[in-house]
Amino acid sequence: MIENVAIIGLGLLGGSIGLAIKEHAEAIHTTGFDLDPQVREAAARRGLVDQVCDTATEAVAKADLVILCVPVGAMEDAARDIADAVPESAIVSDVGSSKQNVGKALAAALPGRTIIPAHPVAGTEQSGPEAGFATLFENRWCILTPPKEADPQAVESLSRFWRSLGAKVEVMDAEHHDLVLAVTSHIPHLIAYTIVGTASDLEDVTRSEVIKYSAGGFRDFTRIAASDPVMWRDVFLSNKNAVLEMLGRFTEDLTALQRAIRSGDGETLHELFSRTRAIRRQVIEEGQDDAAPDFGRDH
Amino acid sequence: MIENVAIIGLGLLGGSIGLAIKEHAEAIHTTGFDLDPQVREAAARRGLVDQVCDTATEAVAKADLVILCVPVGAMEDAARDIADAVPESAIVSDVGSSKQNVGKALAAALPGRTIIPAHPVAGTEQSGPEAGFATLFENRWCILTPPKEADPQAVESLSRFWRSLGAKVEVMDAEHHDLVLAVTSHIPHLIAYTIVGTASDLEDVTRSEVIKYSAGGFRDFTRIAASDPVMWRDVFLSNKNAVLEMLGRFTEDLTALQRAIRSGDGETLHELFSRTRAIRRQVIEEGQDDAAPDFGRDH
Repeated sequence: MIENVAIIGLGLLGGSIGLAIKEHAEAIHTTGFDLDPQVREAAARRGLVDQVCDTATEAVAKADLVILCVPVGAMEDAARDIADAVPESAIVSDVGSSKQNVGKALAAALPGRTIIPAHPVAGTEQSGPEAGFATLFENRWCILTPPKEADPQAVESLSRFWRSLGAKVEVMDAEHHDLVLAVTSHIPHLIAYTIVGTASDLEDVTRSEVIKYSAGGFRDFTRIAASDPVMWRDVFLSNKNAVLEMLGRFTEDLTALQRAIRSGDGETLHELFSRTRAIRRQVIEEGQDDAAPDFGRDH
Repeated sequence: MIENVAIIGLGLLGGSIGLAIKEHAEAIHTTGFDLDPQVREAAARRGLVDQVCDTATEAVAKADLVILCVPVGAMEDAARDIADAVPESAIVSDVGSSKQNVGKALAAALPGRTIIPAHPVAGTEQSGPEAGFATLFENRWCILTPPKEADPQAVESLSRFWRSLGAKVEVMDAEHHDLVLAVTSHIPHLIAYTIVGTASDLEDVTRSEVIKYSAGGFRDFTRIAASDPVMWRDVFLSNKNAVLEMLGRFTEDLTALQRAIRSGDGETLHELFSRTRAIRRQVIEEGQDDAAPDFGRDH
């Protein structure tokens, strides 16, 4: 039974976990810590956790479950900070978007502890202690990537915890996670950041024109490209191999389309453009997006 | 004064123009035609125009303004169909997403007529006669690309018409339009179609996984990649030069990021990812997108 949860890092994810516990699992006592004193102050004001602590060691001292909610590049340091203070019986988990390297970092920093890395596939383009909300994980998937030797009871316990916040839980190995998320999350972010950068660096088209005519499709990319820069820098560096692998496939496919456009091969374009509609339908059927046209933007 | 508007093509754009006229400019009488009898039937049922006609020539016979709302590859045929029936005094316009080739096609099909090409930068991923709605153009930009010799009064008249539907109007030359829209609309669609295609063709990652974990960013791309296949095939073939030019810039920038990831150059990544946030802010300030996180999706 998880009765005390310590959340290290009180941004969008950490804050949302705290608020979701309050809403869905009020029997659980929550403590929290953030390296940034201003974030701690905002977290206390918003009541993201029951008790905001001044040190990480204080926050984890009585925890059954510690969740590290910091950028993946900061996971190892965050784990080292609590190494001496985490109770022997506690589960240590995280919310990082890449899992192989995070798993290794946590294992190195916390030898002998029960480590169950996790990744709730949920978020928005906003970040920081003001951004979190209680329903972020509802109907979203949380992927656990326990090491082979992990205690099945600990995995079950963490699964139950995430389900209690409204999430659906899947277990897979870290390597496969990193490949799947490279294509469903990391490459989409990389190409959104790229096209927004490309558009703002043109000489023949002004920044103001790019913004005025963004309703033609570009504005959707600006949303994704407004995501937290430090978090995403770390994701690309941490999941390098899978990202480069998937990026290779993407650029191959893009080159084929480029060729079709150059040679006036409308059939190839039409065939692909017809196929991709089906995927959208499935995303909506699976409850992973709004069915309303244009995301239900207010017209 | 525009008193009679003929809409040729009764899909998302044509239907929305008809409904917007009803809502904002009820003094105008509207006629409409679509090659597809089922579309005509749906248009009549929804009341997209005052009078659905059985032929294009009947629809345009008394028009002051004819708006061609067909895929850009079908513009020339649609214009030829009405060539003998359009009143001498009428303005002929369109809503196509590429303007140089459409302008040429209309000029070839309708020699001596008043042609003012236009492009309302608005739409959703849905298409067909059920998809239109009256507020599609509110606070969106409509770009007119009149040929140099165009009658300024006709340009002003068409501008007033679009403003009466809630749009903001800008006039620019067709070549510049094609460059601007290549980056704010055509390339975003091309890369969205590509990544959705890439993701669905993988061997190591199943289609079902791609859909389950789409909330990590991918689902936004599936929306754009659900757009009308025929319309978009035609756009890429019609605006080939500008699309290939902008695609070249995009792949250069993507290659630079790929290199930064491979070499572990976090600074380059962080610098770009910080810069792109500002663009999102401006898109929202200019009223071109919702400020609500995650497009205000229902959490």
